[in-house]
Amino acid sequence: MSGSVSPLAPKTYAEMPPVAGVRMATAAAGIKYKNRTDVLMMVFDRPASVAGVFTRSKCPSAPVDFCRANLPGGVARAVVVNSGNANAFTGRKGRESTKMTAEAAARAIGCAESEVFLASTGVIGEPLDATKFSGVLDSLAASGTEDFWFEAAKAIMTTDTYPKVATRTAEIGGATVRINGIAKGAGMIAPDMATMLSFVVTDADIPAAVLQSLLSAGVGPTFNSVTVDSDTSTSDTLMLFATGAVNGQRPVTADDAALDGFRAALNDLLRDLALQVVRDGEGARKMVEVTVEGAESDEAAKRIALSIANSPLVKTAVAGEDANWGRVVMAVGKSGEMADRDRLAIWFGDVRVAVDGERDPAYSEEAATAVMKRQDIPLRVEIGLGQGKATVWTCDLTNEYVEINGDYRS
Amino acid sequence: MSGSVSPLAPKTYAEMPPVAGVRMATAAAGIKYKNRTDVLMMVFDRPASVAGVFTRSKCPSAPVDFCRANLPGGVARAVVVNSGNANAFTGRKGRESTKMTAEAAARAIGCAESEVFLASTGVIGEPLDATKFSGVLDSLAASGTEDFWFEAAKAIMTTDTYPKVATRTAEIGGATVRINGIAKGAGMIAPDMATMLSFVVTDADIPAAVLQSLLSAGVGPTFNSVTVDSDTSTSDTLMLFATGAVNGQRPVTADDAALDGFRAALNDLLRDLALQVVRDGEGARKMVEVTVEGAESDEAAKRIALSIANSPLVKTAVAGEDANWGRVVMAVGKSGEMADRDRLAIWFGDVRVAVDGERDPAYSEEAATAVMKRQDIPLRVEIGLGQGKATVWTCDLTNEYVEINGDYRS
Repeated sequence: MSGSVSPLAPKTYAEMPPVAGVRMATAAAGIKYKNRTDVLMMVFDRPASVAGVFTRSKCPSAPVDFCRANLPGGVARAVVVNSGNANAFTGRKGRESTKMTAEAAARAIGCAESEVFLASTGVIGEPLDATKFSGVLDSLAASGTEDFWFEAAKAIMTTDTYPKVATRTAEIGGATVRINGIAKGAGMIAPDMATMLSFVVTDADIPAAVLQSLLSAGVGPTFNSVTVDSDTSTSDTLMLFATGAVNGQRPVTADDAALDGFRAALNDLLRDLALQVVRDGEGARKMVEVTVEGAESDEAAKRIALSIANSPLVKTAVAGEDANWGRVVMAVGKSGEMADRDRLAIWFGDVRVAVDGERDPAYSEEAATAVMKRQDIPLRVEIGLGQGKATVWTCDLTNEYVEINGDYRS
Repeated sequence: MSGSVSPLAPKTYAEMPPVAGVRMATAAAGIKYKNRTDVLMMVFDRPASVAGVFTRSKCPSAPVDFCRANLPGGVARAVVVNSGNANAFTGRKGRESTKMTAEAAARAIGCAESEVFLASTGVIGEPLDATKFSGVLDSLAASGTEDFWFEAAKAIMTTDTYPKVATRTAEIGGATVRINGIAKGAGMIAPDMATMLSFVVTDADIPAAVLQSLLSAGVGPTFNSVTVDSDTSTSDTLMLFATGAVNGQRPVTADDAALDGFRAALNDLLRDLALQVVRDGEGARKMVEVTVEGAESDEAAKRIALSIANSPLVKTAVAGEDANWGRVVMAVGKSGEMADRDRLAIWFGDVRVAVDGERDPAYSEEAATAVMKRQDIPLRVEIGLGQGKATVWTCDLTNEYVEINGDYRS
């Protein structure tokens, strides 16, 4: 954990109400950190439906392999998360460690190992000594409470400067359901790939297959639209659980219109958590919302937007409060997507800086610079070729990023 | 130009002998800089064969468009290069500027505009006032000398901290031919995309089509294997000219075995110039040679190597002299290429840090750190799946990079 909180942190945290059907507890097992909690256990006293999306890395961590194997079962009884060690690139020992943890969790609550889900975050390449916390799972399983969301978010932090929480409600067929989520940042920013992890729980009654399609669709414009440094963790994990503990909800099926409100609330919550992750980007001092319109397709728009958001030259210009739109042109050009130089237009905030392939005739350095001095900077590019549109979020590239990541292990 | 020379700069510069058939002159036209030369003119008194490769950007500069249009003619009589303004994203004015420059050059030496080639580097989005230097082309054409290579290299610098020159000789069918080259850095590192430009001239007699195939093949393992920050210029230009002024060389054709020595010497020179570009990477304090072996194909190996070389987390670790091989695993995993975590092995210098998907049992932090303290760091990854191999070069990511690029325009 960093000593000072990101200047982009939310001014207040959401009040996190309980979600019926899930209990949580945390422990300080001393995996790497001193004087803080580093193990979280979530328990579903009745089997919950489960959905998940994981890193696309070809070298995933042992817990990611473990979760992928259990996901087709569709049932969750427990989640165990530790911070301080990612259990990634740990070979056979890594698999033994996940097995030992799952066995201990299954014993503690009387369920199958296939109903346990695991996530680890922290240093990689170091064997994870699961005996450090497998012994505490019995007491965690027994002592968990429903009103523990904020503490849960704190236990999974690594280089995060603040805990990330969000809550929403929605109507499903006459019943009001709740959705709570926690996250830690950030897959693509954290030293030693300290992983984006997020766990979302609802008391709605939704079958696993439906839950999975909701989550798979929701991740695109939210968690998969944020980037800090273009690096991808071996351990990124986002899981969604439905306890079914709400009263009076009628059963739902895929494409059920009754899910429209839930889908909207879920996506809004995922976006909230994803933006909290970016706002805690290492060394971040400014947040940039990059919108690309008029591309050949939505997919093309997203690739162009990510090319801009991942460009070190764009990100250092933002850090320097420099309205350097030439670097935006460069990033559009290198994306590989269709673009016609002479149709491009670029805005910083409401200030159009370039149009028709040239500097805007009314360009005002003063007006553009005033936008760059803001903490949150909207950047918009009109490609002029079609209807494709996408928005992604990133932060600036600062000296602090270099310092944090040059010094991390030493 | 930066105030201090890169610590990675060559200790001595190559002595640049004349190449028969090309004369050069420079001028200080005050395009942007004061008290330095910023225009270079190369003149081929007899028509030279010409080949070129250009940026893949979808938003290329006006001079790139101009050169691409003239290249099929295969004949060059003059090259005009300016620094200080890239004439990129300048719309109609940009095209007018290239036309005016080409007309002036063609008039000065009595050739067709289609035999003139142009390159510009510097700030983008600012209209380039070609009248500033079109007036000096007459005197440059008249005053050019063969013994002016080092001055030529200096005139095309922007943020470079040293001029980049290289020379080689080769035998073609009994004749000894010379190859000279100059470059400036660096497409992917320079502020405002200040462009990688390189001009190579030989006195060999080689038809344009053969010259083009030599250059297109040569650029892959050289200029297209270096990266500083993954950003791609709108203006990258590499041109190769053959004056045919050497005495006693028999004509050559494509696939002529007589060209083997020339091909090797050309590739060696291109590699030399490309590495000089990386060694002048903005803020660079260390050079990293990334070799990937055992990938499914050479193409896959190169993509993995570039994923490592472009990773901000790898590059900040190098800056911090941290043997953080976990970030190398991350970069392999995110490349999208086939990799089997449990077959990976990683070396820093001769120190194997990971093997069989785990930290090397004999891992020594001390030995690995000793390698990281070097100025030139070899990093090798064995994928263990096939025979594919590639090497790329990059530099570290330092605070100086952020400072240079955050402050450039202000």
